[in-house]
Amino acid sequence: MSAHVTVFMVEVIDAGADASADDLARSIRIVGADERTVHATDLSASRGDGIFETLGVLAGRPQAVEAHLARLANSARLLELPEPNLAQWRAAIDAASAALPADEQGGIKLVLTRGVEGSGVPTGWAVATVHGNDFPEREAGYRVVTLDRGYSSSLSARAPWLLPGAKTLSYAVNLASLREAERRGADNAIWVTSDGFVMEAPQSTVVLKRGTELVTPKTDIGILGGTTELSLFSKAVEWGLTTGERLVPASWLLDSDAVWLLSSVKLATPVTAVDGSAIGVDLPLTREFNAFLLGRAE
Amino acid sequence: MSAHVTVFMVEVIDAGADASADDLARSIRIVGADERTVHATDLSASRGDGIFETLGVLAGRPQAVEAHLARLANSARLLELPEPNLAQWRAAIDAASAALPADEQGGIKLVLTRGVEGSGVPTGWAVATVHGNDFPEREAGYRVVTLDRGYSSSLSARAPWLLPGAKTLSYAVNLASLREAERRGADNAIWVTSDGFVMEAPQSTVVLKRGTELVTPKTDIGILGGTTELSLFSKAVEWGLTTGERLVPASWLLDSDAVWLLSSVKLATPVTAVDGSAIGVDLPLTREFNAFLLGRAE
Repeated sequence: MSAHVTVFMVEVIDAGADASADDLARSIRIVGADERTVHATDLSASRGDGIFETLGVLAGRPQAVEAHLARLANSARLLELPEPNLAQWRAAIDAASAALPADEQGGIKLVLTRGVEGSGVPTGWAVATVHGNDFPEREAGYRVVTLDRGYSSSLSARAPWLLPGAKTLSYAVNLASLREAERRGADNAIWVTSDGFVMEAPQSTVVLKRGTELVTPKTDIGILGGTTELSLFSKAVEWGLTTGERLVPASWLLDSDAVWLLSSVKLATPVTAVDGSAIGVDLPLTREFNAFLLGRAE
Repeated sequence: MSAHVTVFMVEVIDAGADASADDLARSIRIVGADERTVHATDLSASRGDGIFETLGVLAGRPQAVEAHLARLANSARLLELPEPNLAQWRAAIDAASAALPADEQGGIKLVLTRGVEGSGVPTGWAVATVHGNDFPEREAGYRVVTLDRGYSSSLSARAPWLLPGAKTLSYAVNLASLREAERRGADNAIWVTSDGFVMEAPQSTVVLKRGTELVTPKTDIGILGGTTELSLFSKAVEWGLTTGERLVPASWLLDSDAVWLLSSVKLATPVTAVDGSAIGVDLPLTREFNAFLLGRAE
């Protein structure tokens, strides 16, 4: 995590409100990173009760804005939070992007919480972070371990209260899974269902190459649809590849042509080993992926 | 949630530090409930990455302090957070208790987070809340629904990265489960494992009476040990009852003599119906439970 962080507190405007550009601008207040801006009784801090999105920013241009906002709105619906005012979040993204240097890669985290307990008023903020241009993992790759997420592949549809597919602030298990990976000498983790299907990584999407197909796990097993994957898949035909969402047995991690983790800031990181076994890596294609992702206008 | 809230920010002291009473007092700062005290980049607010405990306070006396502190220390260990300085948390509990009125029931929430991202310094606070003396549910009871928690009863031991038995700030699923209960016309939820065993409620412990035994689910299926249950079970022999931790089939919720949810502030609440079916209620024993719990010195 870079040291350069700017926080934008957002006075959340109702989605139905007819807010002018001036209203939107006034609702966003730039705050120093050292300023305390959240109440201890905000349900984000006390209950992990809220949602977020992290966008990549390249040369001052926020990436995949509409895909992230669509996912934010979907997470809000799944958590029964007020519908986000997307015009307001676009204004927050613009303000945060303008705060980032044009010659370094950055990120913007959007947070929408259920607000201070008992208030019924949601809290919102955005955080702009400079990540620099040094991402050695895009070449060196990740050694990953598979970790049982404990849920079966068929659970999601019948247990919406477990919030499958929602990007919530309740990430303690995600971070514990990354610590477990580190404990095992790996760089990252891939979660599998209790019945042995590939899900996602704690902070990224899994994509595999099998022959001429790019494959990602079906979201209906209870995972998040990847925004970077969406962007990459839209380009696949130009690399002579087809794409598919499939139920992916864990064994495919070992016998595919290549496996990547995709995320908005790190972009495409090749997986080099799974549970201690080296797997196939396609470095030329990884470079094409990242060149495309780094060259996007939006 | 009552309107009367006082926040105590705690400058977390290392467990190994030899802190004097003055050091401890100085490390705790009383803050108005309307003051913003947490950074947006604190991992509590951004990731639900921290732990908590909620103690009941009766006539200014905090209850089951050592049981709560033991559980806080255990949660810290499970999340690999720094070991809490228990002397400091006792001082915070004392300060918070002194802020509560002697003639009303209250609660104190202790929070320990992994701190501002990248800082490596944990954040701590306590919140004192007045709850009053009106707890109609102790007589009227709760209608509950059972909800699949998605985890099998044998998962806990082999998947510590899912943080079984840790009381984390990542409670989005707990709150979503309560909303699901409300949607189904019930007052509360009881989670069951994917293989059909009773676990716990999203914010309380389940206790059943079967013949002359008080039964609670075994914690090794991945649930929290209840502090109020511990207190109650220590008294069981005086009611002519034995106690046991057991693997509890969900069907026992329907054919026991009585079922309760126990928690530190609400104390013992009888369950009156499970998934729409009325069940046995033992109101005299419920009153004995609550009279005992309300009469505790500590």
